Amino acid sequence: MKPRPASGRVRVRRLERLAVYDFARIHAILDAMPVATIGCIFRGSPLVTPTLQWREGNVVYWHGSAASRMLDAAGGAEVCLNVTLIDGMVLARSAFNHAMNYRSVTLFGRAERVADVDEKRARLQAFMEQRFPSRWETLRPLKARELKATTILSLPIREASAKVRSGPPREPAADLSWPVWAGEIPIELRSLAPIADLNSIEKIVPPHVGHFKIGQARGIGR
Amino acid sequence: MKPRPASGRVRVRRLERLAVYDFARIHAILDAMPVATIGCIFRGSPLVTPTLQWREGNVVYWHGSAASRMLDAAGGAEVCLNVTLIDGMVLARSAFNHAMNYRSVTLFGRAERVADVDEKRARLQAFMEQRFPSRWETLRPLKARELKATTILSLPIREASAKVRSGPPREPAADLSWPVWAGEIPIELRSLAPIADLNSIEKIVPPHVGHFKIGQARGIGR
Repeated sequence: MKPRPASGRVRVRRLERLAVYDFARIHAILDAMPVATIGCIFRGSPLVTPTLQWREGNVVYWHGSAASRMLDAAGGAEVCLNVTLIDGMVLARSAFNHAMNYRSVTLFGRAERVADVDEKRARLQAFMEQRFPSRWETLRPLKARELKATTILSLPIREASAKVRSGPPREPAADLSWPVWAGEIPIELRSLAPIADLNSIEKIVPPHVGHFKIGQARGIGR
Repeated sequence: MKPRPASGRVRVRRLERLAVYDFARIHAILDAMPVATIGCIFRGSPLVTPTLQWREGNVVYWHGSAASRMLDAAGGAEVCLNVTLIDGMVLARSAFNHAMNYRSVTLFGRAERVADVDEKRARLQAFMEQRFPSRWETLRPLKARELKATTILSLPIREASAKVRSGPPREPAADLSWPVWAGEIPIELRSLAPIADLNSIEKIVPPHVGHFKIGQARGIGR
């Protein structure tokens, strides 16, 4: 499936050969990177806020305190959500052709609040289930006031585009014989050995902690 | 030095105990993470774009093609720049107290174009020098048309704030005895062994490639 973008706004203008409009790849990038930045307009000026995001089907969610100014400004408003994974630094023979390898998704649209309390609980459960399978049922249950203090926003993946760059430098043939090292320095995001809270009653690291992954295999989403 | 933020806009409202207004720490976070997201207003809607950034003194720069819509929209306009490093997932006894460990800097202000050609070259050289010391002088020199095709924007670090979270979950004493594993899964960004371009004339990996670091030691900027 390679749908055309829904509007001219999401068409990638720069380096269009890097553009990806395929939903499966867009989903893979979103799933590999739980941290997004959300752009919204706050009192007439741009505001960018990093936050955790998760995807269910073709909808992306993020959440936070009901007192958050970003969530307040973004709820019901136009937003731009970006997720970026850094895959490497690309070193060419000229400064001009240096580049980055990356996978990036940008979504546009109107963010909507999840209003219903049961739906809020279901969304948070789905988020936990995706990152830490089977953990939800082992946790101290959410309280009504905690759900009330949590705002969840949603954004459909409708106006979406991705840019993906991988591989070695690309540069004019005339530059290739320049006598300087050229290539890629790969970069990855990885999780390290879990550190138990000193107060943790449960000492055995459960599979949902031990198996946690972030960034996923390089090549996913390409 | 712990200056008060220059305006109410940068005061961290949520979880103010995590706030950092110290310039040295703000600089350390910016220096550890070369990828920023830039928020600007494009045709009335928010636009967020990932891009490489670098810092010289108390000014942050980013660059790209003169044909970029983000650079065109951001030049001379209000922007919001965010840099975020992910340091870990924090698993508490309740879903409500799960959190992320991270270091994040947010800057606000008006982005200005670097207009002078010699200054553009000097800024690009400084950027290269910071990430890859001594590489600039070994590269095929920049051409006038390449400099012309490159837009550089600057933003002073004036309205700046950072949020930093580290360590184990924080939760009510009453929750601590809940029998579920609690703690932190550390996350880091790291560079891997360089991959030479097959066409690279120079086969020996120079120190500026071999010593490249990203994300820096955990604990920097705290």
